[in-house]
Amino acid sequence: MAHINVLQGVPGIRSLVLFRPETGHYLYELAGALLRGPSTLSEAERELIATFVSSQNECVFCMSSHAAAARYLFKDEKGVVDFVLEDYQSAPISDKLKSLLTIAGKVAQDARSVSDEDVALARQYGATDQEIHDTVLIAATFCMFNRYVDGLASFTPTEPEAYEEMGKRMVEKGYVLPSAPVKV
Amino acid sequence: MAHINVLQGVPGIRSLVLFRPETGHYLYELAGALLRGPSTLSEAERELIATFVSSQNECVFCMSSHAAAARYLFKDEKGVVDFVLEDYQSAPISDKLKSLLTIAGKVAQDARSVSDEDVALARQYGATDQEIHDTVLIAATFCMFNRYVDGLASFTPTEPEAYEEMGKRMVEKGYVLPSAPVKV
Repeated sequence: MAHINVLQGVPGIRSLVLFRPETGHYLYELAGALLRGPSTLSEAERELIATFVSSQNECVFCMSSHAAAARYLFKDEKGVVDFVLEDYQSAPISDKLKSLLTIAGKVAQDARSVSDEDVALARQYGATDQEIHDTVLIAATFCMFNRYVDGLASFTPTEPEAYEEMGKRMVEKGYVLPSAPVKV
Repeated sequence: MAHINVLQGVPGIRSLVLFRPETGHYLYELAGALLRGPSTLSEAERELIATFVSSQNECVFCMSSHAAAARYLFKDEKGVVDFVLEDYQSAPISDKLKSLLTIAGKVAQDARSVSDEDVALARQYGATDQEIHDTVLIAATFCMFNRYVDGLASFTPTEPEAYEEMGKRMVEKGYVLPSAPVKV
């Protein structure tokens, strides 16, 4: 049961942005710019960073929905997302992405702990300044979304099918502010 | 020295949004909507929540600049901000604001720890659903800003006068995206 009077049955952040669209539309536009906007990081890589940070913060709603989006984007490499959530250092992803996930994880835990060495390693593996910037901002943004969703105890579905559907929608339609009550 | 190649001498988040205005303008608009938009919480109260959370996260830049904005807004009650940063429970603020700061602090630490009792106490002191929502979202948003600023090691001035000037500007001009290099 959410802490405030939001629409029953509408999951996670969607119930919150329907409650307060004046702030919600900026949140959706920010997510859209970060995860779908022009970038040399693929949409799959960016959704993976979002999933990883949400997992570090133990936010079940954000982790499950963005994991579903990442799985949908990675297509035939479906195992990648679960590998990363279990142990990203041994997952079948590039060294560059591993070094960016290290930075993202530190942003979630204590952003001041991101070191010159962490950044130098990412650069060594080919990360650009903009990719380092976007990694930090995606990680920071999901620290916000995770806290927004969990701090208000918004509805978190438990059926995997609900998230599969969400992930598909997040990829195909992008981050579009719900304009009316939506079903799970 | 910042982790990425931003404009030298431009402090904190301003250097980062100048580096990447495509995402930066949503961040400024979100801050504007949350801290200056229509709300039954005063601008001073909202800046105080932002300051308190930034202090919990030990983000010197955000804490100092929003403390300066809060001090400017509280006018003759200048001691309030420092009281709150030292021990908000004994500070000369309303019981409602204390109960909202408790919620904000929990959002920063572990958002899942915000309890039904915390929310019931805030309601008992007169907080509305929208005030509880906005408190959680301001707290979550500053968990993002704090991490963005510190995760990229952006320039943090040390002179109190620099923050005093910033606080005044944040109140008088609002959250306006810098369109050109700005001086500290």
